[in-house]
Amino acid sequence: MIGILDSGFGGLTVMRPIRTLLPCEEILYLGDTARLPYGEKSPKAIAQYCVENTSFLLDKGIRVLVIACHSACSAALDIVRAQFSIPIIGIIEHGLEALSQDAQQIAILGTRATINAAFYEKRIRTRCPKATIFPIACPLFVPLVEEGYCDHPIATVVANEYLHPLKEKTLDAVVLGCTHYPLLANTIARTLTKTALIDPALSCAEALHRLLNAKDLRQTKQSTGSCTFYVSDDPNKFRALGKIFLQEPIENVLSTHS
Amino acid sequence: MIGILDSGFGGLTVMRPIRTLLPCEEILYLGDTARLPYGEKSPKAIAQYCVENTSFLLDKGIRVLVIACHSACSAALDIVRAQFSIPIIGIIEHGLEALSQDAQQIAILGTRATINAAFYEKRIRTRCPKATIFPIACPLFVPLVEEGYCDHPIATVVANEYLHPLKEKTLDAVVLGCTHYPLLANTIARTLTKTALIDPALSCAEALHRLLNAKDLRQTKQSTGSCTFYVSDDPNKFRALGKIFLQEPIENVLSTHS
Repeated sequence: MIGILDSGFGGLTVMRPIRTLLPCEEILYLGDTARLPYGEKSPKAIAQYCVENTSFLLDKGIRVLVIACHSACSAALDIVRAQFSIPIIGIIEHGLEALSQDAQQIAILGTRATINAAFYEKRIRTRCPKATIFPIACPLFVPLVEEGYCDHPIATVVANEYLHPLKEKTLDAVVLGCTHYPLLANTIARTLTKTALIDPALSCAEALHRLLNAKDLRQTKQSTGSCTFYVSDDPNKFRALGKIFLQEPIENVLSTHS
Repeated sequence: MIGILDSGFGGLTVMRPIRTLLPCEEILYLGDTARLPYGEKSPKAIAQYCVENTSFLLDKGIRVLVIACHSACSAALDIVRAQFSIPIIGIIEHGLEALSQDAQQIAILGTRATINAAFYEKRIRTRCPKATIFPIACPLFVPLVEEGYCDHPIATVVANEYLHPLKEKTLDAVVLGCTHYPLLANTIARTLTKTALIDPALSCAEALHRLLNAKDLRQTKQSTGSCTFYVSDDPNKFRALGKIFLQEPIENVLSTHS
C-alpha cells in the first residue's frame, strides 16, 4: 500500500496523477485536517505532526510513503527519514524534473514555511546554477482555494498583489510550490502570461512509479486500486471539499480517532 | 489569576479591554497557535482542544477563565463548564450587552464554526424577539488580518463580497462575532456606512469585572498585573504578530511544551 501524507486537502492534487499512473495500487491517504494549515506553522510543530502521522500510516501497513505537502517536506523530510525505514518520496525532491536546466529566471511560489525553508531554492541552485530565483510566499492562496475562490475576482486581486514583483521579469518558469496552487493555475497564468507553470505533483508521481518498479513493489493487475482516506477532523467536510481537489467523488473517509 | 483561552491571536483583542478595566489582575493567556485556526474546524475537534487547554491553565493556577474565542465558545462552552468547576465567562454570552433591545435588523459576522452553531443568533432572538437577523460567515477575514491586510484594498474587496447582501438593508447593528474582526472595523465601516459595530470584547471585559467583584476575587492594588502568554507553537511568531492585536509589546511568551 502507498501512503500519502498531507496537512489536509492539497495532497489530493498529488494523488490525482498517482492514480492515473498507478491505477491498480492501493492508497491510504492521511489528511491532518484537525491541525491544518501547516504552511504558517513552525518547522518544529510540522515535524512533530509528520512523525505522528507517518507512525499512524505505518501501523496501517503502508510500504512506501509520499510526503505530498511542500510545507511538510520542507520541515520534516529528513526527520521522518531518520525515524522510519520505509522508502519515502518527498514532493520537493522530485518536483523539479520538468524544469529545464537552461532556465535563467525562475519563480517559486509557496507557503511561508516552504519559502522560509528555501528547500526548493537550494535544489534549483544545484539544477540550474546560473538561474536567478524569485521565491514568493503567498499565504492567502490556501484559504482562497479552500473557500472555493479559485477563479473568483478576489483571487485575481490577491494574485496581482503577490505576483506584482514578477510582472516586469522575463520568467522561464514558475514552480507551484504548494499543492493548493494548481487549482489557482488559471488565475496565476492570467497574471503572469506566457510563463510555464510547473506542477511538481506530476514528476512526483513519476518518481513514485519508478521507485515501485525498482523495488518490485507493484500490485498485480488484478488489484482493484482501492483508496482509503483518514482525516483527523470531520470526515463529512473532507468528502465535500476534497472532491474539488481530487476531481472525483471521495468515499471511504474514516477518522484517525476511530 | 485570570485565564484567557484563545485559538491563537484574536483573544488579545479581548485581553485589551480586560487590561484597561482590571490593570492589577495577573493574566495567563493561552493561544493554541499550533492548531489554529479553530473557525473552520468541527465542534468536536474544537471542544477537545478547549478541554485540553483549560486543563493546562488550571494546572497553572487560574481562578477564573475567559473563553475569548467565539468559535471555541460556540463549540465548547457547555462542555468545558461541565468538566471544570471554576467560574467561566464565554465571550458570546456577554457579548451583546451593548446591543439595543429595540434593534430591528441585526447582522452577525463570524467564522463558519460560529455562524453554523447559531449561538449568537439564539441569544439575539431572546434579547430582541422582533429583530430580523442576518448571520454571515466570513472565513477569509481571519487570514486577511493575520497577513496584516486590515486596511489593504484586498480587505475592501473581500468585505464587499461578504457584506454585499447587507448593503441594501437598514441595519441597526453589526455584531463582530470573531475576535479578529475589530481589526477590520475601518474596512467594515466603510462597506456598511452608518451602522453601529458591536465589539463583544468590551461587554465581556465588563462581565469579568462584575464577576471578580461579586466573588471577591480581585487582586490588591499593590499587585503588578503581570501577564504571561503560553503558546503551543513558536513564541517568536506570537511576539511579533501578537503586538498588532494587543497594541502593546508582548513579553513573557512561553511554550506550552516547555
